[in-house]
Amino acid sequence: MKPLKIGLAGLGTVGVGVIRLLRENADAITARAGRPIEVVAITARDRNRDRGVDLSAMRWHDNAVSVANDPDIDIAVELIGGSEGSARDMVEAALSRGTPVVTANKALVAIHGNALNSIAIENNTVLMFEAAVAGGVPAIKLVREGLAADHLQSVGGILNGTCNYILTEMRATGRDFSDVLSEAQQKGYAEAEPSTDVDGWDTAHKLAILAGLAFSPLSFDTMPVHGIRDVTAIDLKFADELRYRIKLLGLARRGKNGEVEAWVRPCMVPASAPIAVVNGVFNAVTTQGDFSGPMTISGRGAGEGPTASAVVADLIDLARGASLPLWGTDTSPAPKSCVSLDTIESAFYLRVNVDDRSGVMAELTSVLRDHDVSVHFVSQHDAPENKAYLALVTHRVSEKSIRAASAALSELTSVRGAPLVLKIEDFQ
Amino acid sequence: MKPLKIGLAGLGTVGVGVIRLLRENADAITARAGRPIEVVAITARDRNRDRGVDLSAMRWHDNAVSVANDPDIDIAVELIGGSEGSARDMVEAALSRGTPVVTANKALVAIHGNALNSIAIENNTVLMFEAAVAGGVPAIKLVREGLAADHLQSVGGILNGTCNYILTEMRATGRDFSDVLSEAQQKGYAEAEPSTDVDGWDTAHKLAILAGLAFSPLSFDTMPVHGIRDVTAIDLKFADELRYRIKLLGLARRGKNGEVEAWVRPCMVPASAPIAVVNGVFNAVTTQGDFSGPMTISGRGAGEGPTASAVVADLIDLARGASLPLWGTDTSPAPKSCVSLDTIESAFYLRVNVDDRSGVMAELTSVLRDHDVSVHFVSQHDAPENKAYLALVTHRVSEKSIRAASAALSELTSVRGAPLVLKIEDFQ
Repeated sequence: MKPLKIGLAGLGTVGVGVIRLLRENADAITARAGRPIEVVAITARDRNRDRGVDLSAMRWHDNAVSVANDPDIDIAVELIGGSEGSARDMVEAALSRGTPVVTANKALVAIHGNALNSIAIENNTVLMFEAAVAGGVPAIKLVREGLAADHLQSVGGILNGTCNYILTEMRATGRDFSDVLSEAQQKGYAEAEPSTDVDGWDTAHKLAILAGLAFSPLSFDTMPVHGIRDVTAIDLKFADELRYRIKLLGLARRGKNGEVEAWVRPCMVPASAPIAVVNGVFNAVTTQGDFSGPMTISGRGAGEGPTASAVVADLIDLARGASLPLWGTDTSPAPKSCVSLDTIESAFYLRVNVDDRSGVMAELTSVLRDHDVSVHFVSQHDAPENKAYLALVTHRVSEKSIRAASAALSELTSVRGAPLVLKIEDFQ
Repeated sequence: MKPLKIGLAGLGTVGVGVIRLLRENADAITARAGRPIEVVAITARDRNRDRGVDLSAMRWHDNAVSVANDPDIDIAVELIGGSEGSARDMVEAALSRGTPVVTANKALVAIHGNALNSIAIENNTVLMFEAAVAGGVPAIKLVREGLAADHLQSVGGILNGTCNYILTEMRATGRDFSDVLSEAQQKGYAEAEPSTDVDGWDTAHKLAILAGLAFSPLSFDTMPVHGIRDVTAIDLKFADELRYRIKLLGLARRGKNGEVEAWVRPCMVPASAPIAVVNGVFNAVTTQGDFSGPMTISGRGAGEGPTASAVVADLIDLARGASLPLWGTDTSPAPKSCVSLDTIESAFYLRVNVDDRSGVMAELTSVLRDHDVSVHFVSQHDAPENKAYLALVTHRVSEKSIRAASAALSELTSVRGAPLVLKIEDFQ
């Protein structure tokens, strides 16, 4: 049978992984796709780098748009990355020609998903992006197809392997963020410029996509995003004592009146929750549905093998003629704003560094009382130089109140530095 | 747009759930399917029972084959259950007419999958069965589509909620199997005739399906199947001490020469494994792929809501024109026999009830030595009437040797009853 011809842009880890996977599993992939899948056209920044795979049979193009315009390709695969520039140009060019596109580009889909969806619908083609969320874990397929019948209440999880690795290491070793980050950078688990990961942006891109599938496309820039830089070793120690784990979560939830709550931030999750045991570079996506109930899938969220597996799974779907509109429905709903965090009610963890002297606790609790924050549990650890760390767990309170209380606490002369507020997320 | 018309046989919990789900989520389902989905024809054993849903607009048929032959239906949904009788007759009748079938019937697909696949291919139609494995968890979609590109090494997991509930309760309460089973029966978590669940057959049906997708269809009657009746409260106590959990696993693994190892039995799994935290009636499917790495999905494995969610997800796929051959490939490979357990090597847990007197340990260890079973760890608990429970963890040994050693131990006068052998399954 006639092979399905692929034009591929981007020959980094994932691009090379796709070529390798298509070769190593060629027989099984042909049987499952119903026809062979062949990369016939490629491009990358540097033509001459040795990538350890034979590229000689593929047509070289000088840029990604030229791959998209190659009249001999059936599908364009974009593995360049970034929400703008040649990645976006290539995807738009291919969709405009009616050529289906497969991408692993979370930023592109999160930020320009609606615009790309319009181009795809107009040209009667599709954009596939299984690899954009949670790497090898078929999270898109889970939410968009496996749970297509259900009415979901929430979707999200641990969506960034770098942050999960850092938090896991901090817990295991008792070391602080910057120390573990440096080591992760040396080991290649974190980028030299780590902001996309540790400040939560990568998680936010993936969450925007999951929320778009489960609820509604979101206006990406209305999403509250907070990373893990403020989490310290003492917080992980308190978490252990309280039978929690600290995880960077991206979570979206259906509000009472159809609005969408969606945020990225480090949270305390119960040690018994399925995602609490998801450690190291692993990712996990968890859903709560009216009919399906709670569900959690975990696996490798990045890397050559897992991401290539997801890209080629999309190619097999396309070969089989199984393709869906971007958000899973034929309608193209307008993006919604995320609700303000102020409106959220939750229990919170509040850690304060204080001078260890009598009367401090009374000062703190009176500030909390003034902000209607009721405390459920207090724990203390001594710190050097006559200081102490205090951890408080609150009853359910509005996020507005706890933020105001935290700001007021930081004004006290006995309080050192900014208190840390973490949402306690028990997935109820 | 013209509705997709469904003929449904079987109005038990799941059948009613499907009707309820199609009504409650009608708008979202229509948007995702691209057209409305309507049940137009039904049958069940008792026409007059009040099922709490309005069935008056649906055509009643006197039997399932008559539903399949209704010329007005686009898809037949079989929710009767059982590998023979009217369930099989209906599915064969519908496929023979070229009508796609959706079923939740694990026994039918496990035992007659190949024959049904042939009928489907011959008549250019498909059999969908997402609900047959792990209820609401889209395990079929995960393995057949999400991991279609990868070369899997193993697939399986916790596939029966009744057994997992019983083992979870035994651990939590220290009570014995028969006691917890009675309670589960009273609560409706176990059938009055519990053999299908507690003797492992339900797990075996689901495993046969997963193995068929990942590796090759299996000759179902060659699969070694063992249930949980032999597991006692003391075994769960020992497991806790050893940092293991006891889970009824169905697991299939690719052998060195293309053969398939597949079995059902209670195993010791490390307390840190992702499936170790899957408790109560929850199911979990875990895979290990060359490219995708390890992956685990968990959720509700049975019940009205989850199973209905999976059935309707299949209907949406069919509405979208996304359908696959039964085993995911166009070829129809002949069923393979499962390899004999004798050839498997593993570490094992061995629990023996003995008279608590000097010299017993020497007797036991000499029997083990004679069978080349090398012991890694021993633990002991006193039992009433001067008896003791001994738990031994072996080094890696052939299953043939440990079984022979266990048989020889049961011949000793100091040994009471049959020893229990559990595989230690660390998913390596």
